[in-house]
Amino acid sequence: MSNEINTFSAQTLTEITARVIGAMGAPTKSANTVAKSLVLSNLVGHDSHGIIRLVEYSGWVEQGKLIPAAHPQIAFSKETTAEIDGAWGWGQTASFLATEKLIELTKQYGTATIVLKQTNHVGRLGEYADLMASAGLMGIAFCNTGGAVVAPFGGFRRVLGTNPFAWSLPGSGAFNYVLDFSTAIVAAGKIILAGMSGEVLEPGLLLDKDGQPTTNADDLTNGGALLTFGGHKGSGVSVLIDLAAGILSGNMPAAISQSGFGNGTVLIGVDVSRFASVEAFKSVGKEFELIMHNAGEPNSVLMPGEFEYQTQMSRSKNGVAISSGVIKNILEVADRYKVEIPEFR
Amino acid sequence: MSNEINTFSAQTLTEITARVIGAMGAPTKSANTVAKSLVLSNLVGHDSHGIIRLVEYSGWVEQGKLIPAAHPQIAFSKETTAEIDGAWGWGQTASFLATEKLIELTKQYGTATIVLKQTNHVGRLGEYADLMASAGLMGIAFCNTGGAVVAPFGGFRRVLGTNPFAWSLPGSGAFNYVLDFSTAIVAAGKIILAGMSGEVLEPGLLLDKDGQPTTNADDLTNGGALLTFGGHKGSGVSVLIDLAAGILSGNMPAAISQSGFGNGTVLIGVDVSRFASVEAFKSVGKEFELIMHNAGEPNSVLMPGEFEYQTQMSRSKNGVAISSGVIKNILEVADRYKVEIPEFR
Repeated sequence: MSNEINTFSAQTLTEITARVIGAMGAPTKSANTVAKSLVLSNLVGHDSHGIIRLVEYSGWVEQGKLIPAAHPQIAFSKETTAEIDGAWGWGQTASFLATEKLIELTKQYGTATIVLKQTNHVGRLGEYADLMASAGLMGIAFCNTGGAVVAPFGGFRRVLGTNPFAWSLPGSGAFNYVLDFSTAIVAAGKIILAGMSGEVLEPGLLLDKDGQPTTNADDLTNGGALLTFGGHKGSGVSVLIDLAAGILSGNMPAAISQSGFGNGTVLIGVDVSRFASVEAFKSVGKEFELIMHNAGEPNSVLMPGEFEYQTQMSRSKNGVAISSGVIKNILEVADRYKVEIPEFR
Repeated sequence: MSNEINTFSAQTLTEITARVIGAMGAPTKSANTVAKSLVLSNLVGHDSHGIIRLVEYSGWVEQGKLIPAAHPQIAFSKETTAEIDGAWGWGQTASFLATEKLIELTKQYGTATIVLKQTNHVGRLGEYADLMASAGLMGIAFCNTGGAVVAPFGGFRRVLGTNPFAWSLPGSGAFNYVLDFSTAIVAAGKIILAGMSGEVLEPGLLLDKDGQPTTNADDLTNGGALLTFGGHKGSGVSVLIDLAAGILSGNMPAAISQSGFGNGTVLIGVDVSRFASVEAFKSVGKEFELIMHNAGEPNSVLMPGEFEYQTQMSRSKNGVAISSGVIKNILEVADRYKVEIPEFR
């Protein structure tokens, strides 16, 4: 295999990923579900949430944090509220169960809320928000994240996780309007990667351990802290996520959590058809999209979810590029589990 | 009266404000409700949403946009969803009715959603979010706003309103955790004020009519556009608010609305006691507050809602400072309605 970027079909990547996850001890159905979810992240252009996660997941399995054969359960369901117990299995299987339950309760009652507890990395929140929108819901999803690496606005000590937030609405046709972002100004992984490549960071992303602004990526691992997006506003969103998702799930906010692990997750659904017709969403959405597209230079303004849609169209057709570095990392995991990946050799 | 800042008790300001609103044609109860709400904004430090709004409101009354004697009604209520028809009366009276109904339905079902239609300026969303938190709810409130003055990320044309977002949780004791912000990077009113004072803006707030960054405040009224907070993330939040609140309420997004007026508003409540004890919120909140307060220099890191709490404590004791400019503006309104305000003379 050359040192170049190699491209693979989503199907090939899903088969490879499911094989490795299965070898970690996951039942076939769980392995397929998690694999499909990871590859979808690659397909829509969020490689940070794609198959590279196999490395992290295998570490958790070996540390006993992720129980590969565990199945999520509905812990309770009462009227519009339900709790899913992830049983420290795969966060994705718990999240799909939660999303399915949320859609069911929202359709029944008009609004519903699901909390996920004892749940490992849920993957990309936008995937679940997209499913909610496809079912005719306005979907809200947020989770707190183990490990405080972000400083609140005005401070410099690590208090907050990267606490992502997703929000979706049914779209006008080709794609739903799906917003999905980390409340950290940039992903910790990107800073670490920049450090490895010796890159100088742009200003405004990172503080060093003394609270001084820095462009040296190594300061993050040296006791520094990421900033939040959007100044005091983004910081406030991160605080609310940490408290709401942390307390409601029992995971506790990152700075308080004993385990420093897992995603306490909250899903909220609203059945938009209680208030407006699906047709109104389609026609107003179409008109609004056009106004957005004309709000700047051609192709400079996108709707939430449009980048992911375009990327998925392109990568479904042309394949997903996987760097030799990622392949090398995944082959190392596969070797530990005695899985053959001839496609990567 | 001198040209200095004058301070007044909240009670005096409420009486004055209710008198003016009553003279506009509002029934006594509505006038008192709106007056109390406006003065509360002054008390918590958000003077932009305080009694100065009498100027704007009187204009709307005279244009027939705000019907001072109208009463909000529950348009429909079905399971967890209800719609309040503001009947183009006072946005605050509609919002209090909506908040009351939201709390009732949320307590009954666990989660609920209320949409407000035909509603004038609702005032400060944080006030309603705070009431939800006091009732033991996680509260979410957002509204779209008439008049596109904000450019979406990547563009330069006016598409979005200032579309505010509020989010609340029960606090540990003295105050609830209430976040409430405009998705515009800064209030349009502040830019206009800066222009009047000949101030040069800090960079990154405004684009001129050709889409070029500018520090000249006059460019806003000259076809320019405000930016959103938080880059593409904040822009996405604003887009979702405009679509969700605009379509669900029938107000339509600012760029599409025929009337270009009113606040399409959505309130969502979750009864936190379905998932965690109120005691957990109190004890974890207390611990988290301490961690936040120690995350930087003394008094540099605040919880969401803490600035408002501190300001309210201070202004309740020391009075609310009202500038002579604001007094002059309100006296002009009062004169039009033949209301005497000896307190301001």
